[in-house]
Amino acid sequence: MKNTLIIAAHPTLASSRVNRKWLEEAAKHPEQVTISSLHEKYPDGVIDIAAEQALVEAHDRIVLQFPFYWFNCPPMIKQWLDEVLLEGWAYGNGVDLFRSKSIGLAITAGGRETDYRPGEAFRYEISALLTPFEVTAAYIEAAYETPFVYYGVNSRTNDEEIRRSAELYMDYLLQPRAVSVPAE
Amino acid sequence: MKNTLIIAAHPTLASSRVNRKWLEEAAKHPEQVTISSLHEKYPDGVIDIAAEQALVEAHDRIVLQFPFYWFNCPPMIKQWLDEVLLEGWAYGNGVDLFRSKSIGLAITAGGRETDYRPGEAFRYEISALLTPFEVTAAYIEAAYETPFVYYGVNSRTNDEEIRRSAELYMDYLLQPRAVSVPAE
Repeated sequence: MKNTLIIAAHPTLASSRVNRKWLEEAAKHPEQVTISSLHEKYPDGVIDIAAEQALVEAHDRIVLQFPFYWFNCPPMIKQWLDEVLLEGWAYGNGVDLFRSKSIGLAITAGGRETDYRPGEAFRYEISALLTPFEVTAAYIEAAYETPFVYYGVNSRTNDEEIRRSAELYMDYLLQPRAVSVPAE
Repeated sequence: MKNTLIIAAHPTLASSRVNRKWLEEAAKHPEQVTISSLHEKYPDGVIDIAAEQALVEAHDRIVLQFPFYWFNCPPMIKQWLDEVLLEGWAYGNGVDLFRSKSIGLAITAGGRETDYRPGEAFRYEISALLTPFEVTAAYIEAAYETPFVYYGVNSRTNDEEIRRSAELYMDYLLQPRAVSVPAE
């Protein structure tokens, strides 16, 4: 079983600089990482649910990678969650598919880390803005990793920052994960 | 200027019971409420951005109505936010479009209200799970209303509960709103 499955969504990936670089670098590690880039695979917006479920089954770590727009994921990440995480497969009577898996988030965020604080521009820590994902992971009994967030991504982000962000992301992606199985 | 614009999204509205009933009841008040039901208007998923912006400009209160799936909005609500709330129109240099408007949320949620608490099944109050919408409103300088949430909606919700939920929603929709303009 390969370790990590990236579910990536960026509405304009071709013109993306950071998210595209992240996928290019991740693609250099095919023994450890599988990439499912939703807009590239499904340009008509129709997700192959069975194919996505088979990918999830074949990996023990799922990383949702996306730009943080309006403090939330892009529509196609949400579509993936809604359409793929079905009752009877992801959760429900006796289902334990995710109990040996973990869910991570890999996010590019505008603004500086210091903006994501009470009293500052974005009012909340990013962990608080990501609670819908944390509770989703808990609902399906997956372990929820501390999100990987690269802050301050905007049109002035330079090549060195992009290179550095990819390096940090690869560290995050490729480190072995000890998935703790929740107690009964 | 009409008061309230409902931006509604339900991926399967035809088989929805509560959200569909809410829109049917709201449609009985055309002098006060305009309905933009995204999946009905845009079955191909292509939003008419200029038309949506014109609707927003013509109302002083925007209510996003949706079922709460995976503790978040459906994809098409997020698509609307991403595509319609553009820099230079919704925010940015000198833009003050939303400073005289308010944003509300009208949500059907599974689970009981008591499940949305620390230590309970869904771990957080619903207000905490909705912080992305609160911060979005703040970013464009709109007033953010306390969300209208109808809890416990599931396949066992009966006709009397649906009728009652619609009655409460109409109270919420039709009450006059005093929009406070934030200080400079």
